[in-house]
Amino acid sequence: MSQTTITAELLTIGDELLYGQITDTNAQWMSAELSLAGIKVVRKTTVGDLEDEIIGAFAEAEKRVDIVLITGGLGPTNDDLTKPCLAKYFNCGLKMHNEALAEVTAFFTSRGRELTEVNRQQAALPECCEKITNKMGTAPGMWFQRNGKVFVSMPGVPHEMKRMMTDIVIPKLKQSFKTPVIVHKVIRTVGIGESFLAEKIAAWENALPPHIRLAYLPSLGEVKLRLTAIGDSKENLEKETDALAEQLQPRVGSFIFGYGETPLEVVVGQMLRERNLTLSVAESCTGGYLSHLITSVAGCSDYYLGTMIPYSYEVKMRQLGVKPEVLEKYGAVSEPTIIEMANIVRAKFNTNIGVATSGIAGPGGATPEKPVGTVWIAFSDKDKTVTRKLQLSPDRGINIKMASVAVLNLIRQNLNPL
Amino acid sequence: MSQTTITAELLTIGDELLYGQITDTNAQWMSAELSLAGIKVVRKTTVGDLEDEIIGAFAEAEKRVDIVLITGGLGPTNDDLTKPCLAKYFNCGLKMHNEALAEVTAFFTSRGRELTEVNRQQAALPECCEKITNKMGTAPGMWFQRNGKVFVSMPGVPHEMKRMMTDIVIPKLKQSFKTPVIVHKVIRTVGIGESFLAEKIAAWENALPPHIRLAYLPSLGEVKLRLTAIGDSKENLEKETDALAEQLQPRVGSFIFGYGETPLEVVVGQMLRERNLTLSVAESCTGGYLSHLITSVAGCSDYYLGTMIPYSYEVKMRQLGVKPEVLEKYGAVSEPTIIEMANIVRAKFNTNIGVATSGIAGPGGATPEKPVGTVWIAFSDKDKTVTRKLQLSPDRGINIKMASVAVLNLIRQNLNPL
Repeated sequence: MSQTTITAELLTIGDELLYGQITDTNAQWMSAELSLAGIKVVRKTTVGDLEDEIIGAFAEAEKRVDIVLITGGLGPTNDDLTKPCLAKYFNCGLKMHNEALAEVTAFFTSRGRELTEVNRQQAALPECCEKITNKMGTAPGMWFQRNGKVFVSMPGVPHEMKRMMTDIVIPKLKQSFKTPVIVHKVIRTVGIGESFLAEKIAAWENALPPHIRLAYLPSLGEVKLRLTAIGDSKENLEKETDALAEQLQPRVGSFIFGYGETPLEVVVGQMLRERNLTLSVAESCTGGYLSHLITSVAGCSDYYLGTMIPYSYEVKMRQLGVKPEVLEKYGAVSEPTIIEMANIVRAKFNTNIGVATSGIAGPGGATPEKPVGTVWIAFSDKDKTVTRKLQLSPDRGINIKMASVAVLNLIRQNLNPL
Repeated sequence: MSQTTITAELLTIGDELLYGQITDTNAQWMSAELSLAGIKVVRKTTVGDLEDEIIGAFAEAEKRVDIVLITGGLGPTNDDLTKPCLAKYFNCGLKMHNEALAEVTAFFTSRGRELTEVNRQQAALPECCEKITNKMGTAPGMWFQRNGKVFVSMPGVPHEMKRMMTDIVIPKLKQSFKTPVIVHKVIRTVGIGESFLAEKIAAWENALPPHIRLAYLPSLGEVKLRLTAIGDSKENLEKETDALAEQLQPRVGSFIFGYGETPLEVVVGQMLRERNLTLSVAESCTGGYLSHLITSVAGCSDYYLGTMIPYSYEVKMRQLGVKPEVLEKYGAVSEPTIIEMANIVRAKFNTNIGVATSGIAGPGGATPEKPVGTVWIAFSDKDKTVTRKLQLSPDRGINIKMASVAVLNLIRQNLNPL
């Protein structure tokens, strides 16, 4: 890069983080976002709820970096000291901020709740700061600027902080500092493990130019490939990364379900909507998680009609209607049963597609032939019923999530091209 | 406290933690272990792989605390700077440590691998430190002591660090310092916001003795209260914190669902199991998430039989069996409909209890009378049907989660005492 690096420190305030009772996931998320914006995090600091510690940390950070991003200590209770400490550090008084008060009041009113005095005080802000609206909660954020350095204070509640960072803080930091041009291209794959993927694309990876880096970001059932390109021209970098992504098609195209931030459940939903198809679900071992993924997508009622979770044998037979002789002969975790489940739910719910899961999530219920992690999944439409047997992990939570992702991928693979 | 508090700082070294590519789970684990040992972590710091940064952080930490626990930067590659920085900081040379060399050699031999020169160099240690054996890997730990302060350097690989901490570092710290006893008591509440809770227990909170501190730890729908007591006798502190928790019963007892680490879905499951009751679910707006919470508990098939997710009107009528005239007259998000849903699922699935959700998760589907976040929930057993109307948030994901937690709480509140 030809320009100066803009540096940041993440300062987290709260005894709970020092006592080891919660993991600080905010810091990782913020580091990643700042990195995407071309801002380099050079230090992370966590201090407890003590005025001297907090103010000391402000002073140290101000010496070290351009941007200090503070999270935590903004709640309405007495152990929350960030705001008074900031007021003291920037040498200005707390004053009721009318717009902030209106926002806090509206937040409570919209929920039919009464505004207490304690909550009202959340709208009192240091006079020398700019308020940052908190769309997801009651404690406003604060933006301080002095001698070319910026301090931003945000709540520690992850979804409140994230919304504030995305909507306001990152764009405002980009305006305030001259950051390099960084372009990211995320290629999303499903149904292939990280090491297999790495083998298949080794030659491509080794040929990447020095200003473009690759990261593997695996999660349950998915691997994201992220290209990070640094340079001067956004347009050129985008062209380069698009071309590189295109080169992956002949290598691993069948595993690529999309690009960027769009998750698999959204891609599958979009495929169903475009094809004018409807979906129903019969899920047993996944216990609602598959339906939760599907219904986490706004507007899913366009294609998703409903689910039966036949957890017990009785419900499998009486409510869903799996034939008792099939259940008795093959067991709930078997190919004949999963075929019944997918076909029946499709017929009963009168949808184009039916999908089903049945397996041993664990830790109980295993047999020598069906160890924990054995899961059958199926896809049914008017032309075919496709099944797959998965052998997942010893962990209940992981099995539930991986099986659900596998069903979404099964739908994706079995829809006809448009 | 009658004695001086022994303080510690956790110093993590490594660029990968600043770029947001991995979560630092070591720090949480170490904090919790040190807290149990009566050592108070007062700061956490993360710095990158830069000599000036690292040595600067050593000097700052030495001024602040009694114990500096360093992880990371001990690998065999060039970007690992912890060891040379420690040698420089403590002003002594690196020298091959024969015992360490024998251990590294044995580690490689036992795995049938060849010892490279790079690995051999891992046994060269600053002359002024005591070696700490690494039973799980090749980089030894180091213990430095100067003017009553202790520096410990450990690998960043979690299982190597944990074994070293448990076997050697914690016992040695307890010998080296007179540590107090620390007791934590976590009281878990649901169904009341942080600020309302704070108001209700303000008098109790203000009367806490100085050696016992309170923290509020909110998450979606829940608030944990954590008491931290410092003293000499574990038994006395446990008695004190138990008595304080007991005093909360008349104040906010109806919101307290448990203590310690057990989540609400486990507590509710245990209540159902103890009462020999079975449960079925009809969930619409929560779309499977409520069932997912219930089925995330191993062994839930003892009491949970199944779920219907009647997402569409058709499925609500044809499959679940809600009367068309009720749906038409009052709409899906209404008290008459939610009563039908809970009663019908209970009858159809032949369970003791039926619960139901129906609401506007958002962002679509709102009307002036039913804004996004309007959710009806119901509990039905043979004696009663209880409903509740919730007014949640503008966010789909939050509404799904909060409504699900609210149903679990509704079950808890409506079970008869044993």
